[in-house]
Amino acid sequence: MSTSTSPRGPDPKRDIVLERVVKASPSLLWRVLTEPEHAKRWTTPLPWETVECEIDLRPGGIFRTVMRSPEGQESVNLCCFLEIVKEKRLVWTNALLPAFRPAPTPDGVPFITAEFTLQPDGRGTRYVAHVMHRDEADCQRHVELGFHEGWGTVMQQLADFAASLDRG
Amino acid sequence: MSTSTSPRGPDPKRDIVLERVVKASPSLLWRVLTEPEHAKRWTTPLPWETVECEIDLRPGGIFRTVMRSPEGQESVNLCCFLEIVKEKRLVWTNALLPAFRPAPTPDGVPFITAEFTLQPDGRGTRYVAHVMHRDEADCQRHVELGFHEGWGTVMQQLADFAASLDRG
Repeated sequence: MSTSTSPRGPDPKRDIVLERVVKASPSLLWRVLTEPEHAKRWTTPLPWETVECEIDLRPGGIFRTVMRSPEGQESVNLCCFLEIVKEKRLVWTNALLPAFRPAPTPDGVPFITAEFTLQPDGRGTRYVAHVMHRDEADCQRHVELGFHEGWGTVMQQLADFAASLDRG
Repeated sequence: MSTSTSPRGPDPKRDIVLERVVKASPSLLWRVLTEPEHAKRWTTPLPWETVECEIDLRPGGIFRTVMRSPEGQESVNLCCFLEIVKEKRLVWTNALLPAFRPAPTPDGVPFITAEFTLQPDGRGTRYVAHVMHRDEADCQRHVELGFHEGWGTVMQQLADFAASLDRG
């Protein structure tokens, strides 16, 4: 019996990749991605907002946000950082709790690992989000749950906020 | 709504900790833990044996073994390394596949994260295995599945093999 190794790089059946060039330097974009006061500005699609954000930027460290709707409904995201290469690469998952403990299945959304890479591109930064699922069914379900609307909006909010700081 | 952060360190309800002093230096024990030809000698309780072992010792790297019974039955363990501090600390999980992808639920066993620490102790090494489960039910199920017999035997095999090399 043999099991093939998962290669690095996207798998078209199980992964979703979003990419865009952001009008901010890698160092500024990195701060926007990793500093809680900045992250609160873009991590939740409006009209919801991020009311709490905790980031412990090390492997095994916590990444936790609390999102709130205009009506006061709240939702918690609790993730674990896996890999941090300053201004280049950031990886977290919701399949592990902080300190790497296996996580309970989250409400609604599937388990994912999200890998973000930053590359200088002219005066800006090419920003790639690679979202991995355990299988095709989970990936498909994530799409049906509105992945593209949610993550697309968040990526736009991120790009707008980073560009506003770059100009500022 | 608030979610408490999982602290580092064992949780008596969800974790199992095994500890012993091995008669080998930390550097030798580290090699026994991380080099495939050594790992094949102790990672499966006899009379089963480890017939394949693949180790890519970096965060996101593969840790894969194939165990075989005397009758030829085979079982694959596929895990992902999370943290590597040479001669001090090693962490892997079966909740993620290599390259950090969320893993399908494994056959039989629950999701675990295993953290191994090595500390010099006299002429040997204090070796601690800290096995984390997502909840008390998974931990209890793991005990009922024979955790202590399996991991106890493996730890004895590890200690005997490392001591034999230390003498050799």
